[in-house]
Amino acid sequence: MEKKKGLIALSGGMDSTTLLYHAIIDLGYDMKAIAFDYGQNHKKELGFAKLQCEELGVPFEIIKLDFLNKISNSSLTSGADEIPEGHYAKDNMKSTVVPFRNGILLSVLTAYAEANDIGSIFLGNHAGDHAVYPDCRKSFIDAFKSAACEGTYNRVKLMAPFINMSKSDICELGFELDVPYELTWSCYRGEESPCGKCGTCVERTEAFLDNDEIDPLYELQDWIKAVTYYESLYEWLVD
Amino acid sequence: MEKKKGLIALSGGMDSTTLLYHAIIDLGYDMKAIAFDYGQNHKKELGFAKLQCEELGVPFEIIKLDFLNKISNSSLTSGADEIPEGHYAKDNMKSTVVPFRNGILLSVLTAYAEANDIGSIFLGNHAGDHAVYPDCRKSFIDAFKSAACEGTYNRVKLMAPFINMSKSDICELGFELDVPYELTWSCYRGEESPCGKCGTCVERTEAFLDNDEIDPLYELQDWIKAVTYYESLYEWLVD
Repeated sequence: MEKKKGLIALSGGMDSTTLLYHAIIDLGYDMKAIAFDYGQNHKKELGFAKLQCEELGVPFEIIKLDFLNKISNSSLTSGADEIPEGHYAKDNMKSTVVPFRNGILLSVLTAYAEANDIGSIFLGNHAGDHAVYPDCRKSFIDAFKSAACEGTYNRVKLMAPFINMSKSDICELGFELDVPYELTWSCYRGEESPCGKCGTCVERTEAFLDNDEIDPLYELQDWIKAVTYYESLYEWLVD
Repeated sequence: MEKKKGLIALSGGMDSTTLLYHAIIDLGYDMKAIAFDYGQNHKKELGFAKLQCEELGVPFEIIKLDFLNKISNSSLTSGADEIPEGHYAKDNMKSTVVPFRNGILLSVLTAYAEANDIGSIFLGNHAGDHAVYPDCRKSFIDAFKSAACEGTYNRVKLMAPFINMSKSDICELGFELDVPYELTWSCYRGEESPCGKCGTCVERTEAFLDNDEIDPLYELQDWIKAVTYYESLYEWLVD
């Protein structure tokens, strides 16, 4: 019997990479991956996405969305110096919002899937994503799922199996699936090592700590710095 | 009091142009227009969209969606010779489908609106659009409306006031609003005059006939040919 076909939005980060492994190993899909170049400050994560696909023998394509850079004022597309530090829940993190980004990415995935007879599209959104990004919440995912069904005569189904999981749960699953996290990138800055202080670094540190693991992207010294920074934020949050 | 702000997807055709007039005159919106260049065979309609905006003093912008050309196999983006003739309901008209096109256009509109504090986005879809395009049906519009609300914390509302109207109804409204239909373009081919035979020409002929009007885009001789062709299809349909 032919395998079910799936298409994933692969960012090169932990969540979508773990989802790719989950879709192939646990769910038995024949996967294809798309990464989006929307004028991010750095392309480092796209390189990691490509490497993962080469490891897995998964076809990989980059789709350029130049227009997103023009219509958004996000710090994610306006230079690394603008990236705020701290926890996602903090107000200044709003500058990292690319408006309705998931709506656009999912629409393109849906179109690509329909044009290529692929029945499922995968998005690695999780429960912790929603604080400042309205298009990451479960209510948005559910609404878009209906739109994708209605807009394709039910030929394309949106799968977001991590939507009720935390990043720590995803990390746990990833260790079970032997996901090579040394080939993933989360930091909003694209420097040699992760900065350990931007919203996505803090979130990633938390996920590894919750699983009693060391993030393989760090030298030990830098990992201790990242953990110390994370703990200082946690104190700030419980104050 | 400041006027409500609206953003329209303007194709340069009859429906969206009439909607632009309706939004300004009947609904009192301060409008801005976006036309999409997605690798259509011809750019003639984009020129008409620009002209209409100049007439109305409405800010106008073209957003390029190059990737759509790459991911779709539609005859609308693969050369004028491929455009089928006849009525929309016919099977061969399926080649004109750009998969999930409205999903993509609406996502980009939503993002643009949110980034620029515009509260409403307008789409000129109508009841006759749905035959071969699933993302033109009311059920899709309703689902996407929810997605846009959920994905922007209710900051962007999708308006599709023509969704229960026929193209003939829209044409009637357009005559009431003095819409200059000589500055609109529908034909899928981008030649000197409309071909009178492609799906969108046939539909437009019907709308003008229903209103006892002559389409100002035609010389009288050509208009008679278009009407004759339309009537031959109609006989085919009632057979």
